[in-house]
Amino acid sequence: MTSISAGVVGAAGYIGGELLRLLIAHPEVEVTRAYSASQQGKRVDSLHPNLRGHTSLTFTHPDELGSHDVLFIAVSHGKAAELVQAIGPAAPLVVDLTADFRLKDPAVYETYYGSAHPAPDLLAGFTPGLPERHRDALRTAARISVPGCMANAAILALAPLAGIVDQDVTIDAKIGSSGSGATATGMNLHSERSGAMRVFAAVRHRHEAEVEQETGLRVRMTATGVEAVRGAQVLCHATASGVTENDLRRAYRTAYGNEPFVRIVAQRRGLYRLPEPKILAGTNFCDVGFAVDGDRVLAVAALDNLGKGGASNALQCLNIRMGWAESTGLGFVGLHPI
Amino acid sequence: MTSISAGVVGAAGYIGGELLRLLIAHPEVEVTRAYSASQQGKRVDSLHPNLRGHTSLTFTHPDELGSHDVLFIAVSHGKAAELVQAIGPAAPLVVDLTADFRLKDPAVYETYYGSAHPAPDLLAGFTPGLPERHRDALRTAARISVPGCMANAAILALAPLAGIVDQDVTIDAKIGSSGSGATATGMNLHSERSGAMRVFAAVRHRHEAEVEQETGLRVRMTATGVEAVRGAQVLCHATASGVTENDLRRAYRTAYGNEPFVRIVAQRRGLYRLPEPKILAGTNFCDVGFAVDGDRVLAVAALDNLGKGGASNALQCLNIRMGWAESTGLGFVGLHPI
Amino acid sequence: MTSISAGVVGAAGYIGGELLRLLIAHPEVEVTRAYSASQQGKRVDSLHPNLRGHTSLTFTHPDELGSHDVLFIAVSHGKAAELVQAIGPAAPLVVDLTADFRLKDPAVYETYYGSAHPAPDLLAGFTPGLPERHRDALRTAARISVPGCMANAAILALAPLAGIVDQDVTIDAKIGSSGSGATATGMNLHSERSGAMRVFAAVRHRHEAEVEQETGLRVRMTATGVEAVRGAQVLCHATASGVTENDLRRAYRTAYGNEPFVRIVAQRRGLYRLPEPKILAGTNFCDVGFAVDGDRVLAVAALDNLGKGGASNALQCLNIRMGWAESTGLGFVGLHPI
Amino acid sequence: MTSISAGVVGAAGYIGGELLRLLIAHPEVEVTRAYSASQQGKRVDSLHPNLRGHTSLTFTHPDELGSHDVLFIAVSHGKAAELVQAIGPAAPLVVDLTADFRLKDPAVYETYYGSAHPAPDLLAGFTPGLPERHRDALRTAARISVPGCMANAAILALAPLAGIVDQDVTIDAKIGSSGSGATATGMNLHSERSGAMRVFAAVRHRHEAEVEQETGLRVRMTATGVEAVRGAQVLCHATASGVTENDLRRAYRTAYGNEPFVRIVAQRRGLYRLPEPKILAGTNFCDVGFAVDGDRVLAVAALDNLGKGGASNALQCLNIRMGWAESTGLGFVGLHPI
Repeated sequence: MTSISAGVVGAAGYIGGELLRLLIAHPEVEVTRAYSASQQGKRVDSLHPNLRGHTSLTFTHPDELGSHDVLFIAVSHGKAAELVQAIGPAAPLVVDLTADFRLKDPAVYETYYGSAHPAPDLLAGFTPGLPERHRDALRTAARISVPGCMANAAILALAPLAGIVDQDVTIDAKIGSSGSGATATGMNLHSERSGAMRVFAAVRHRHEAEVEQETGLRVRMTATGVEAVRGAQVLCHATASGVTENDLRRAYRTAYGNEPFVRIVAQRRGLYRLPEPKILAGTNFCDVGFAVDGDRVLAVAALDNLGKGGASNALQCLNIRMGWAESTGLGFVGLHPI
Repeated sequence: MTSISAGVVGAAGYIGGELLRLLIAHPEVEVTRAYSASQQGKRVDSLHPNLRGHTSLTFTHPDELGSHDVLFIAVSHGKAAELVQAIGPAAPLVVDLTADFRLKDPAVYETYYGSAHPAPDLLAGFTPGLPERHRDALRTAARISVPGCMANAAILALAPLAGIVDQDVTIDAKIGSSGSGATATGMNLHSERSGAMRVFAAVRHRHEAEVEQETGLRVRMTATGVEAVRGAQVLCHATASGVTENDLRRAYRTAYGNEPFVRIVAQRRGLYRLPEPKILAGTNFCDVGFAVDGDRVLAVAALDNLGKGGASNALQCLNIRMGWAESTGLGFVGLHPI
Repeated sequence: MTSISAGVVGAAGYIGGELLRLLIAHPEVEVTRAYSASQQGKRVDSLHPNLRGHTSLTFTHPDELGSHDVLFIAVSHGKAAELVQAIGPAAPLVVDLTADFRLKDPAVYETYYGSAHPAPDLLAGFTPGLPERHRDALRTAARISVPGCMANAAILALAPLAGIVDQDVTIDAKIGSSGSGATATGMNLHSERSGAMRVFAAVRHRHEAEVEQETGLRVRMTATGVEAVRGAQVLCHATASGVTENDLRRAYRTAYGNEPFVRIVAQRRGLYRLPEPKILAGTNFCDVGFAVDGDRVLAVAALDNLGKGGASNALQCLNIRMGWAESTGLGFVGLHPI
Repeated sequence: MTSISAGVVGAAGYIGGELLRLLIAHPEVEVTRAYSASQQGKRVDSLHPNLRGHTSLTFTHPDELGSHDVLFIAVSHGKAAELVQAIGPAAPLVVDLTADFRLKDPAVYETYYGSAHPAPDLLAGFTPGLPERHRDALRTAARISVPGCMANAAILALAPLAGIVDQDVTIDAKIGSSGSGATATGMNLHSERSGAMRVFAAVRHRHEAEVEQETGLRVRMTATGVEAVRGAQVLCHATASGVTENDLRRAYRTAYGNEPFVRIVAQRRGLYRLPEPKILAGTNFCDVGFAVDGDRVLAVAALDNLGKGGASNALQCLNIRMGWAESTGLGFVGLHPI
């Protein structure tokens, strides 16, 4: 079999670990190196205990970066730009899961990240890792920038509504603790984070800019950490005149009727009437739904922030790029109850 | 000592149990009866195990309603109206914690509750149980209607902003499982409710109408159940021109500077920068906070849905009504960590 | 391809739903009917929302039982015996996940279940669904009885120690809320069950008898519900003279060195040094580990009570019975973090 | 009023914060200093947000230790001994909540803590902070050593059984995350600790030695971290011949019939039949219960590890020492639901 070789930089993190889980099980990929600047020499399964019996890899320091058919980057924001500059154009395929190459406009980057973009000349080379919106471009992309977890959810919820709803949209995002990564800080101490409803970005969350870039809407986002490990949900509050639920259902069906990983969930009955992330843990699904009340439109999306909000979405992009069946290695349907 | 006698109808429920906890410890009140239509004869502490050693009461059927200096009603919505009609004007003081007498306009009631109000002539007799807004009226009230938990939070967050923000406000409310009561249903099965981000009222939550009535704003509310037992938080998304954080701080200080149970929490640093309900469990506090970004205003409030969102707020009203020190029996400051 | 047809009775429950999830994805099985006495006519994915997009089945009443190559029974304890009697010997293969046919001795059944066994003559026809201990018998079994979740964990932890440790063993079992099933009761109300450490079987848990039958040890088990949806863990407290950790490691390696779904986890470092269920959710793994202190031996096992403690273990039995690769359809490695 | 002045060393930790909460509300105590080696200058309520509005104290470095009528020590184990030596015999009353002075025999200390005791000559001066067992000695004590949380629970569960049960007892202890303190480490990262059933002390937990010292039994303890913030529960597995439930109930009643903070909970019905910690959060209760099955005896105890397992127990000791009503400042009855 002709598998490709993959390396993962930032493999000790949560997105990195999820990438390893998926890539190890992928029939066309061989993970040849897991890079970590802090855990070199340790066994991968000592940090990702779910991989016991599935890998004997140890972490390699990224200073010893090898060559790979595809390199995934899941490091801290800001460090990916350095790395992409360092490896240069020779690397055949780079999939970046950080924020560094998500925003096309360096000025917008500076507004949201507080410093000049470290490599503005490289921005144009990146294709957004949004299969539902840039599938054709992804087929030939050499550099892919995977969107932020809450951004991806909001883009998938709102993109079909552009032209239907008014320009101003308020997004209320909720996310589990894995969204802040694997490094212990007071913020993520169990006794503090447990049972939280913590508004960690009252205004101007960085994912706002990604959603605006992709949808053309004017977006205001507030993000709250709630009790969960995995999972993100966005409630997008919009307005529109004379729009019915049927109009919305039609818009979503047009957009996602053939999508393998976007499901429309907007039911009148049952417990799980609208998208909810817990049943999506470990999957590549983004569920989207909606409701209407007079001039008010609510769009809802849910996903696993490490899955369709990160690692598995990146793998979907790789599948497209390589011409493999798009759902290869992404077959897990999720658990219930959970 | 001259204590007054209190009865609690619906004492087997969660609001009822919280009332019992507070009233039993109150130095001026003696709980003489705990009424429950389904648990008669059982020991109160068999359902409320925290009261072991603190009461030997058993539940009495409400058909055997006695006379009390004050009667608290914490039954299912709709049944309070029947009860209030049945007991008639003789009962000296009734504090109703259901939705039955919260809305002044029977037409609005019908819009939100789907049927005609069962006792419209009694509506005018009820004073809203909002100490921060109707303290003087409460001093002489004979009938008090305690607001809904999320409504109370939203009213306290938004009332100081009326005249400052634009008319349209979107409220994103989160609440723990105790908000749906002590009756087992599929909705509240632990395996289903655990880790939920469940949009149970996508549009037109009933508490909308209460907030509109009290603030004069046009309110749209979405309510989501999140993983918690106690606790409710509202994020109120508003707009305004040329408003600064200092303007908002001043408005809140004017409104709540002397309030014993509303704290202004809007800090630049720390984990608990904005109001969060978990540290309020068991207390009578409502914490309120805010943020501004250009033309956007975010107001946040948090409380214990069974506390300031219900039972302890009712007790604060009673303290006012009786002329006792307003914080009598409400001294618990809350736990951290929790 | 020559797939076999499968029916699941009790398909609306949690074990039933997990069976459906696994069978639907199994390449050699076609689920032709999902039976439920209470949910007939409803869509399967209305109760098991993780299956949206993966099945269009609706529930059939078990009175309309069809013929299947394999029938899985996941009903309430006691009802499986009736069903097995009703379908008679014609059904080619029955896999029972209830307690009805787990105990070989009807007298022991009566001791633990409080009534005479309803079909003692059928007991001998059932092979225990314990691949690690009865693999050869399973290859030709027509009736398979899958062990209880905590029993399976304890058997896998203790069986290698028979002959090494003394006769008396005390087992401390912990389990998540899904172990009590999908029917709403006060016991499983979220507000009551959340954060619980509830000793629901102080002494004489029914799974004791299964462990005694299979290991020959004298077992005393206490079971406590803790905060989790999926997951069971047993701590088996035993004594022995002159036994070292190396002796135990050797015993476990001899027993499980070639087992695809039992991993030995007993490390000196790291967070996950001993078996823990949360990283096993959705998998078919049972992790086993141990520790020694003088004359004291601790054996630990963890599994997903709906997985290796139920549905996926049943599927492993089916794979053995049909001669398929034993891990077919059981490849999910589990999530971290979770 | 003649209140006494109190200082708390280690006031930024969780036990320290709980002490502050209780002392601030205590009518006879004035907290004059909150000491922290790492947080000096910060407001106390920035780390303990439940104290907002209840204190304006800032943290003082312990190098600037003042004189106090009573000094509480809640620092890391090992540092209390240094501090007690430094302050010398002049300090009128010291209540130590660390492990440093719990074990009377320096040899046992060395066995369990791995190094020689740093101040063996001071050991004899400490009275165990166990009101139920050393009340008289506490009335005149100048140095009090408060037991470990799980040790206190186990001592209260087992002490009445000494002479009734056989010598060997196995204890299975469960505890919430606050038991590992307020310092962020990988162990306590929310994503790792959430939903855990983590055997962090498979054998030879340090609290074993405390239980042996106080009960005379031979104790073996295993400790597991489960999903909770506050709360500890011990299941004590013992054996005995011919003992009935009535015998046990009588023994517990004899021991605790007049105790204000030990409740006997062993019921045949209801959800909370045996002691469970969640309803004890914030209280000073230790609930104890039991079950018998033939020659097997199970004793169960539950408490809040920061409450009766630490801070509030220390306050109960102070009340005894000062001759105040024993329950002064300890009136919180606990929440339900929670």
